[in-house]
Amino acid sequence: MSTLTFPPSLPPPAEDSERLHIAIQGWGTDEGLIISVLAHRPSRHRREIRRTYGEIYGDDLLKSLDKELTRHFERAVMLWMLEPAERDAMLANEAAMKWNPSNRVLIEIAVARTADELFATRRWYQTRFKRSLEEDVSAHTHGDFRKLLVPLVSSYRYEGAEVNMALAKSEAKILHQKIKDNDCSHEEVIRILTTRSKAQLSATFTDYKNEFGNPINKDLKSDPKDEFLSALRAIIRCIAHPERYFEKVIRLAMNRVGTDEEALTRIITTRTEVDMRLIKELYYKRNNVPLDRAIQKDTRRDYKDFLLALIGHGDA
Amino acid sequence: MSTLTFPPSLPPPAEDSERLHIAIQGWGTDEGLIISVLAHRPSRHRREIRRTYGEIYGDDLLKSLDKELTRHFERAVMLWMLEPAERDAMLANEAAMKWNPSNRVLIEIAVARTADELFATRRWYQTRFKRSLEEDVSAHTHGDFRKLLVPLVSSYRYEGAEVNMALAKSEAKILHQKIKDNDCSHEEVIRILTTRSKAQLSATFTDYKNEFGNPINKDLKSDPKDEFLSALRAIIRCIAHPERYFEKVIRLAMNRVGTDEEALTRIITTRTEVDMRLIKELYYKRNNVPLDRAIQKDTRRDYKDFLLALIGHGDA
Repeated sequence: MSTLTFPPSLPPPAEDSERLHIAIQGWGTDEGLIISVLAHRPSRHRREIRRTYGEIYGDDLLKSLDKELTRHFERAVMLWMLEPAERDAMLANEAAMKWNPSNRVLIEIAVARTADELFATRRWYQTRFKRSLEEDVSAHTHGDFRKLLVPLVSSYRYEGAEVNMALAKSEAKILHQKIKDNDCSHEEVIRILTTRSKAQLSATFTDYKNEFGNPINKDLKSDPKDEFLSALRAIIRCIAHPERYFEKVIRLAMNRVGTDEEALTRIITTRTEVDMRLIKELYYKRNNVPLDRAIQKDTRRDYKDFLLALIGHGDA
Repeated sequence: MSTLTFPPSLPPPAEDSERLHIAIQGWGTDEGLIISVLAHRPSRHRREIRRTYGEIYGDDLLKSLDKELTRHFERAVMLWMLEPAERDAMLANEAAMKWNPSNRVLIEIAVARTADELFATRRWYQTRFKRSLEEDVSAHTHGDFRKLLVPLVSSYRYEGAEVNMALAKSEAKILHQKIKDNDCSHEEVIRILTTRSKAQLSATFTDYKNEFGNPINKDLKSDPKDEFLSALRAIIRCIAHPERYFEKVIRLAMNRVGTDEEALTRIITTRTEVDMRLIKELYYKRNNVPLDRAIQKDTRRDYKDFLLALIGHGDA
C-alpha cells in the first residue's frame, strides 16, 4: 500500500549519484532534479545511492544535501534518505530530548511499528547516541507519562494472532473500572496497554464496546484537554487502526493556522512506503478533499513538490 | 573461563548419537555413558547431536532422555541440552509463573547476561510460550517488585564503555538520599538501576562508596530480611561483580539443611561455558573448600558425577 512510484528498471546507483552530483554542484542547486531522482527510488536503492555517492565523490551525500537544501524541504529529504530504523531513532531522540506532553512521536514509534522494527530502532539508537532509548526517555519524562512511555518504548510485543477471550473480557472490565474511577494512569491500565499483543488488545477493545456501550476512546474523552488521556487514545488508535491515527495527524497538521510541517513531513516520509495509499483514501473520505489538493494548498515550492511526488500526486 | 573439557577432535554427531542411543535403549539406562558424552561437548556440538539424533532415530533426544532419567540429574541434563537463550526462556517462564519475592532467577537472566543475550531470550520466550516475557512478568508480579522487574526484563542496556562522571556523581547522590529516606522502591532508584549501562552504574557505585563511605550494598542491608532490598543488592552484584553473585548463590545453595538443587543446577548449567572457572576460584577463596569437594559432599550418584564433570573435577 505504498504510494512510491519508480521506473520499472531502476538506473544503476552510480548513474543516480552522478545526477545528484550535478544537481548539488556549482552555483544554484537543481531541486527539481533531486526530487526527480530521490522521490522515485525505493528504500534499498536510496541506501545504495548513498553508499555509491560516497565511494565516487568521497562525500557523504546526506551532508552535501544538508548544505545545499533549506528548511522544510531539507528536513523532508534528510528523513526520507535515512533507513527506517535510523530515521525512527533520530525522531525518537528529538522527541525524548525536548519532550512535552503533547508530543506523540514516541507513541507512534513504539506502537505503530512491528516489534522487530521497534527493536531495530533501539539498536540504531545506541549506535548513534551511545545510550539506550529507554534510558533517555526515562531521564527526560516524569510522572504518569514516564510510567507510560518507558514500558512502551521497551516493549517487544508478541505478534501472533492467538487471542484469549476470557482475558480480553477481564481486562476490558479493568479498563472500564479505571476509566470510570478517573484513574487512567493506574498501573493496571499501563500494564495492559504496554504488554499485551495487538491482537489481544483489539479483542479487549471490542469486548469493551460490546459490554459497556461506547468505544473505549469515547470514554477516554471525558476531558478533551487532558494530555494523558489524549496519549492513551493515541496508543489505542495506533494499536487498533494505525491508518486512522496517521490520517488524523495529517489532518490536524493542516487544519490549523499555520501548517505543522514537522508532523506532515514525519508522517509522509515514514508512511509513504508502508500504508500511505490507505491513509490517502481515509483522508479523502474524512475530509472530502484529496490529500494532494490539501497539500498543494498548505505547502510551497520544492517542499510541496517533494511531498506530492512521495504521495503519488494525481493518482488519488 | 569455561570449565568444560572436551576431546581436541570432537567425534562426529552421528557417532555421539549412536552412543547415546545405546545408553538410552534397552532395560537399564547407562547414565555414565550419557555423562561421558554430553558433559564433554560444547554448546554448538550438543545442538548438532540433538539434530542428528532426531534424523537418525526419529525421536527427540530430549524427550528420550526425559523418559529415562530422573529427578535432579534429569533436570540438569535437560537444562544443559537447551541452547542458552532457550534455557533462559524456560527458567524465566518458571520463575514468572510461580513467582515469589525471594526468587532471583528473573534478576539473574535480566542482569547477568549481555543485552543481546537477554533479547534472544525474549524472542525464544515468544516462540515457546506465545506471549511476551514482560507480559507474563507484569501479570504475575505486583507492587514494588512489578515496578522493578518489568523494566528489568525489558531492558536493552547500552554496552559501550563510555562513562559520564558528572552523571555518576549526581545519581550516586540520588541513590544515597533514597536509601537514607528508606524509600528504595522510589521510581528514580528503579530508573537508574534498570536503564543505565553497566559501565555507567559501576562508576556510580564507585562514586557512592567514595562519597558516602560505605559500599552501596552495605547501606542496602538495613533490614536483612527485607526481600526488596535483597533483590536490589542482587541486581547491584550482578551488574558490578556477576561472578561474586554466582558464587554466593552456589554457597547458599549448599550451606543449609538440605541442598537447594534447583539453584545449584541452574548456576552450573548456565555458567559452565561462561565463567565457571572464575566462580570456582572465588568459591575456594571464600570457603576454603574447593567447589568439587563441596559438591561431592552435598550431592549423590549420577547428579553428582554430572555436575563434577561440568565444573572440571580435579582441576580446581
